[in-house]
Amino acid sequence: MQLFLIGIGSGNPDHLTLQAVKAINAVDLILIPRKGAGKEDLADLRRDILAAVLTNPATKLVEFDLPVRDEAVADYAERVNLWHDAIAGVWAENIGGAEKVALLVWGDPSLYDSTLRIAARLSPAPQITVIPGITSIQALTAGHAIPLNELAEPVTITTGRQLRDHGFPMGVKACVVMLDGECSFQTLPQEGLHIWWAGYAGMAQEIRLSGALAETGPKIIAARAQARAEHGWIMDIYLLRRRHDNI
Amino acid sequence: MQLFLIGIGSGNPDHLTLQAVKAINAVDLILIPRKGAGKEDLADLRRDILAAVLTNPATKLVEFDLPVRDEAVADYAERVNLWHDAIAGVWAENIGGAEKVALLVWGDPSLYDSTLRIAARLSPAPQITVIPGITSIQALTAGHAIPLNELAEPVTITTGRQLRDHGFPMGVKACVVMLDGECSFQTLPQEGLHIWWAGYAGMAQEIRLSGALAETGPKIIAARAQARAEHGWIMDIYLLRRRHDNI
Ligand SMILES: C[S@@+](CC[C@H](N)C(=O)[O-])C[C@H]1O[C@@H](n2cnc3c(N)ncnc32)[C@H](O)[C@@H]1O
Ligand SMILES: C[S@@+](CC[C@H](N)C(=O)[O-])C[C@H]1O[C@@H](n2cnc3c(N)ncnc32)[C@H](O)[C@@H]1O
Repeated sequence: MQLFLIGIGSGNPDHLTLQAVKAINAVDLILIPRKGAGKEDLADLRRDILAAVLTNPATKLVEFDLPVRDEAVADYAERVNLWHDAIAGVWAENIGGAEKVALLVWGDPSLYDSTLRIAARLSPAPQITVIPGITSIQALTAGHAIPLNELAEPVTITTGRQLRDHGFPMGVKACVVMLDGECSFQTLPQEGLHIWWAGYAGMAQEIRLSGALAETGPKIIAARAQARAEHGWIMDIYLLRRRHDNI
Repeated sequence: MQLFLIGIGSGNPDHLTLQAVKAINAVDLILIPRKGAGKEDLADLRRDILAAVLTNPATKLVEFDLPVRDEAVADYAERVNLWHDAIAGVWAENIGGAEKVALLVWGDPSLYDSTLRIAARLSPAPQITVIPGITSIQALTAGHAIPLNELAEPVTITTGRQLRDHGFPMGVKACVVMLDGECSFQTLPQEGLHIWWAGYAGMAQEIRLSGALAETGPKIIAARAQARAEHGWIMDIYLLRRRHDNI
């Protein structure tokens, strides 16, 4: 079996690459997860993308219910492992005898995404082709029209939890924070930091805020809470940079 | 004036996004740098992309000679600043009175690229729109079909020079190294590191090597030298990861 993990970009259907469009039209079967309540917009986005670019009448679409994590399992790593096993099982059931199968992956399949790890559980092992997609990091920097890094400087990509547990990453002047449900920038010493934040980056409802963290942080917290209440869900991302750098 | 900085991906014309195709066809003028000898393949790629997707007969293409850096200026930052000033000057000359202008930027305009900094020198200030593109990082991880980060772990993006001067980045188990003309992984203690390397990632001539750094490093050095001799140029990128992690 050939398995195509197709990055679809970060919410803008026009993030799709020509390579992704070709792959979508070259497979026999596309598996589409039905996510839980509140994530309807996201399942709809996949349907919209397919409605816009899928022209091959032979391609079958199969929707499946994404298993839920078993919160009774205390250990985080074990809970995630069991969940990935369950997802691989549901994939296998729905793939049946199909030869060329695709999954549409949010953003890029390499970045904070488990599709590759789940695919590694399939047996016999499929031949995996990854099609890169626009990440939410690129959607963030494009929206603000800013560079990710200073001239030849390093940058770290990290998570909200890492930021809370370990503070501003060592050895770098800039970091991108993802997977942060708690506005973890609050836990940092606020002085000397600049933030560029986006909710729904790249999407029609994109919101952006930027400025000195001390003043902008509270605005982000308020805007995020309001947007989340309005849409029922939010995905957000930000770049933090130590000030006094050349931009 | 409206200036569109369009990410074109990392060498595969099919990395182009639908958004990039639309922007290419919506402008009056596209500026194309003619680079020096040995970079002909790269200028050709821009021409190939335009030949494939530009359908608007009203769009003018203007080629210009990219100024060269004045190696007589000793200070690195000053040399780069003067060079960027010179490029902005040549852009302005060639833009003339055009209203909607585009530049095609390799990979994504946010990542180790100076187009945004050069654009900031134009006066009057244009309205800048950034169209994200597939980076060479995504081309690297897609080619190897690997995740960039471990489950919820941070990752640092850095340069060959940083790696030589500061060693393996602090506080992370993985880093991507770009802008490395010297196989700087050689300067690290080799034990316990794994490398995933690609030359010409995403392009027809892509080469990939991966494995324990101690064994794979020398193979990369040899393959890189040979490919460079053959093609006259090379661009390469790699991910380093401390071993004993779950992949
Ligand atoms: C499970 S990760 C998936 C990342 C994805 N693979 C990518 O390439 O961007 C989800 C996190 O990505 C970020 N994210 C994804 N899409 C986003 C968007 N459109 N706007 C803001 N943040 C987004 C958020 O930080 C979110 O918590
Ligand atoms: C000036 S930076 C531009 C990066 C570009 N903006 C991006 O998004 O990837 C040039 C460096 O990017 C990396 N690079 C760009 N394209 C590449 C490719 N096709 N294969 C391997 N490395 C590439 C190399 O490390 C090279 O030294």
